[in-house]
Amino acid sequence: MKLLKDKIINEGKVISENIVKIDSFLNHQLEPTFLKKIGEEFASRFSKQGITKILTVEASGIAVGLMTGIVLDVPVIFAKKKQASTLDHRYFSSSVYSFTKKESVEIFVSKNFLGPQDKVLIIDDFLARGEALRGMRSIVTQANAELVGVGIVVEKAFQDGGKTLREEGVRIESLARIASLKDGKVEFI
Amino acid sequence: MKLLKDKIINEGKVISENIVKIDSFLNHQLEPTFLKKIGEEFASRFSKQGITKILTVEASGIAVGLMTGIVLDVPVIFAKKKQASTLDHRYFSSSVYSFTKKESVEIFVSKNFLGPQDKVLIIDDFLARGEALRGMRSIVTQANAELVGVGIVVEKAFQDGGKTLREEGVRIESLARIASLKDGKVEFI
Repeated sequence: MKLLKDKIINEGKVISENIVKIDSFLNHQLEPTFLKKIGEEFASRFSKQGITKILTVEASGIAVGLMTGIVLDVPVIFAKKKQASTLDHRYFSSSVYSFTKKESVEIFVSKNFLGPQDKVLIIDDFLARGEALRGMRSIVTQANAELVGVGIVVEKAFQDGGKTLREEGVRIESLARIASLKDGKVEFI
Repeated sequence: MKLLKDKIINEGKVISENIVKIDSFLNHQLEPTFLKKIGEEFASRFSKQGITKILTVEASGIAVGLMTGIVLDVPVIFAKKKQASTLDHRYFSSSVYSFTKKESVEIFVSKNFLGPQDKVLIIDDFLARGEALRGMRSIVTQANAELVGVGIVVEKAFQDGGKTLREEGVRIESLARIASLKDGKVEFI
């Protein structure tokens, strides 16, 4: 998606060889007009699949998940990272390690919102080693739902998450695939 | 907002005299069509105020903030609850105590996205004692920006946050104001 790549080049900040910060429109400040286009792009790629639910994880996945849900007109579930005091004991859960934050977190989805009848599209902002994606896939499996595919805004293709998950048969659509962040420069595949 | 009150009555779950869980369309699963209406309602109440930025806080504020930002066509900033490893040192911060989660968290907003030229609308899902709202107001003040008003989806009017903040001169628009959650029943003002 050219518009996205241009914005990453112009507004992204390369912090290290592994991290590019996209805070001006995706991860801290949200740009509604642009995010609408992201939602439309994901929706068009999965429009024929009979999606019934979108699954994402708080916090940065919520905006892109919701924008896709608006176009596909299906509910959007965001997995919670901490067991809320208002969450009852009927939930699916999975453990996710964040290499960026250097900690493991448990993610939760209430059993009320996902079941065997569901065809699920997972949406997330970043894909690197695929930890969050594996956690969400595990929740879809626990619910006996069908994982139809995955929509990712930015894939760090120099890390192996996308590669191994595709080898396992997961359909992953990434709108921008970064080949390298070396020398402070973003290079796309 | 009648539609919202009806949904709270029909889908909300009263957990205690202080907590009503609204997980089916607002706090865990998001209902796009309904949230669009919430965004339109907030936007119409503040359409004449020259809003330049919407400020909310992760995670549950993101969806309603974004839906309002789409209609007003302004950027939406979500305050982060944990200092991300990708966040540099140029940020405003404030401490927020959550009575629900029984812990204090620091919230952060990058100085890149808020400044003296901004007219800010704060949007959040719940207002109870007003802790999150005070934290976000402090960040607006630190940025020398103008706080134009606050849009709240559900106000627990039996707690004192809304009352004291209104007495301090803050314009707060709540779409549903709960008078009581006694005996497992939601009563509106």
